[in-house]
Amino acid sequence: MTNTVISSASREVVIGFDRPFVMIGERINPTGRKLLAEEMKAGDFSRVEADAIAQVAGGAHMLDVNAGIPLADEPALLARAIQLVQAITDVPLSIDSSIIAALEAGLAVYQGKPLVNSVTGEDEVLERVLPLVAKYGAAVVAISNDETGISMDPDVRYAVAKKIVERAADHGIPYSDIVVDPLVMPIGALGQAGQQAFKLIRRLRDELKVNTTCGAGNVSFGLPNRQVITGTFLAMAIGAGMTSAITNPLHAEIKSAVMAADVLSGNDGDCAAWIKANRDPNAGGADREARDARRRRRPAGQ
Amino acid sequence: MTNTVISSASREVVIGFDRPFVMIGERINPTGRKLLAEEMKAGDFSRVEADAIAQVAGGAHMLDVNAGIPLADEPALLARAIQLVQAITDVPLSIDSSIIAALEAGLAVYQGKPLVNSVTGEDEVLERVLPLVAKYGAAVVAISNDETGISMDPDVRYAVAKKIVERAADHGIPYSDIVVDPLVMPIGALGQAGQQAFKLIRRLRDELKVNTTCGAGNVSFGLPNRQVITGTFLAMAIGAGMTSAITNPLHAEIKSAVMAADVLSGNDGDCAAWIKANRDPNAGGADREARDARRRRRPAGQ
Repeated sequence: MTNTVISSASREVVIGFDRPFVMIGERINPTGRKLLAEEMKAGDFSRVEADAIAQVAGGAHMLDVNAGIPLADEPALLARAIQLVQAITDVPLSIDSSIIAALEAGLAVYQGKPLVNSVTGEDEVLERVLPLVAKYGAAVVAISNDETGISMDPDVRYAVAKKIVERAADHGIPYSDIVVDPLVMPIGALGQAGQQAFKLIRRLRDELKVNTTCGAGNVSFGLPNRQVITGTFLAMAIGAGMTSAITNPLHAEIKSAVMAADVLSGNDGDCAAWIKANRDPNAGGADREARDARRRRRPAGQ
Repeated sequence: MTNTVISSASREVVIGFDRPFVMIGERINPTGRKLLAEEMKAGDFSRVEADAIAQVAGGAHMLDVNAGIPLADEPALLARAIQLVQAITDVPLSIDSSIIAALEAGLAVYQGKPLVNSVTGEDEVLERVLPLVAKYGAAVVAISNDETGISMDPDVRYAVAKKIVERAADHGIPYSDIVVDPLVMPIGALGQAGQQAFKLIRRLRDELKVNTTCGAGNVSFGLPNRQVITGTFLAMAIGAGMTSAITNPLHAEIKSAVMAADVLSGNDGDCAAWIKANRDPNAGGADREARDARRRRRPAGQ
C-alpha cells in the first residue's frame, strides 16, 4: 500500500494503491499544438488558462504543464504557465520538461508539493534531477529508459526503474515519492505492447511497491477510434495495478472507462462517483459531463 | 495454452488462450422477456430467429439458446429453438438449461459439438450432466457453486471448479472441454466482485489451465449506464485471462470494449479486426456496426 502525496497550496491529491485512479490532464503541452506554441511564445497564456479550467471541470485530478517550445525561453515560459495555472485552479501540478533548468524554474515558483516529470535512468540525468527533487521535497516521475534507449525487454525496463528508485534513496527520496512510467509503446506498431505494459505494471507494484503512470495516448497512436483503445487500455492497466496516467479527461470514452474501472477495482466506494456522474439515466452521464466540458472550453478557441 | 473447440455442422469456433475473445450472444433467453416467452410457448419462434440473425450480424461468435419458460414443455421448446437457429445461422451454440431433460433433448438434435450450459458442483448434478456431455462429445460450462451455494470465498469457488474438472476426467471429459464460469456478482452489491473475479479468472487459467466464461451483464446489475460497466468489466477480465463471455454484442460499448481488449492483449493480429471495424473514421466504427445490427433487427419486433 503505497501513497504518493502531491499538493497545491490548498489541495492534496494521493496517488495510491486501492485509491481512485488519478487522471493528470495532458492538454497544457505545446508539442504538436502549433497555435498554442505560438501564443505561449508571444506571451499569450489565455489558451493555457482555458485548458486548465476545462480539464479540471472535465474531471482531471492534477494537470501536467509543459512549455517545450523550440527556440523559446522554456524556463521562463514554464514558470509563468505554472503561476498562471496555480492562480486559477487548485489542483496539484506535474512540472513537465526535459530541460533541467526549466524544471528548476518551475519548482522555484510552485506552491505546494509538485510532481516533477521526469527523470530517466541515465546517470547524468539522475545526478542533476534527483538533487532538485530532494531540495524542493517533490515527487518525481521515473521513466524506465537509460543510456541504451528504451529496451524492448520488460525485465530491462524493470531493472532501470529499480536503479532509479535506489539512486533516489541515496538522495533521501523515498520510493513512495517515485511514480514509475513503464513506457507504453503504440500497439499498432508492437502487438505485445499491451501485455508488456500490464506485466511490468504488475511487477512494479508487487515487487518495487511503487505507484505508476504513463502517457496513455501513445498506446493508440496511428489507429482509428483512438479514444476507445486508450480508454480500454487504461481500464486494463488499472486492472493490472496502474494508479495514475497523463491523459485527456475531456474524451468521454477515456473518462468513462477510468470511472468504470474504479468501480470494478472496488475503489469507488458504493459506486458513489459513478452513480453521481450517471445520475440521469437518459443523459449519458460521464459522457455528458465531458461533452459539457468541451462546450465550455470551445469559446476560448482552438 | 488450452483450446476448447466448439462447432456447428459447418463452422468451428475455438475458445482459447491467446485467441480473440469469444462473444456468446445472450439474447435467445425468455427469462425476463415476457413477450418472447409467450410467443415461444405458443410455437412462434420468429423472434428467436430474428435475435439469432441480429446477434451474428452484430459480431456474436456463438449463440446461447435458452427456453426456460415456467409451465412449458422446455425440452421440446429447446430442441425446436436449436433446430431453427441451426437452420438459419452457422455459428456453434451453447445449449442452456437447468433442466437435464432439456439439455438432453437439445443435445439429441444438435448438429456439431455444442457447449452445454451448464453443470454445477453438486454431486447429483455432476452425475447426471457429465455422462450426457461425455455421450455427445460436447464441451461444458462449469459453474463454481455447489450444495453450499455460491461461496463469497474465491478459494472455495476455485476448489469447486477443480472438483468439477476432476470429476469430468473420470467421465473421460478433458479439462480442455470445460469452460469455467467463476460467477460474477453485481458490483453495486459487492464492491469486491470485480477484484474477486479477476483474481479467480487468473488462477483458473494459470493453475487449472481452463478456459473461462461468465454471464457478463450481471456485474452491472442495478447501476446506471450499465453497458459501460459491463464492457469495461469484460476488458479487465480479458486482461486477467478470461477467454469468452455470454453477453450482448449489439451493445456498442460492449462490442467495442471487447474488440479493443483483443487489440491490447495482442490477440487481434496487426489490429486487423479493429481497423476493419473502424475503417471510416467518421462513422464510429464498431459502434456503427452494432447500430446497424440493431436497425436490421427492429422490423422483427420487440
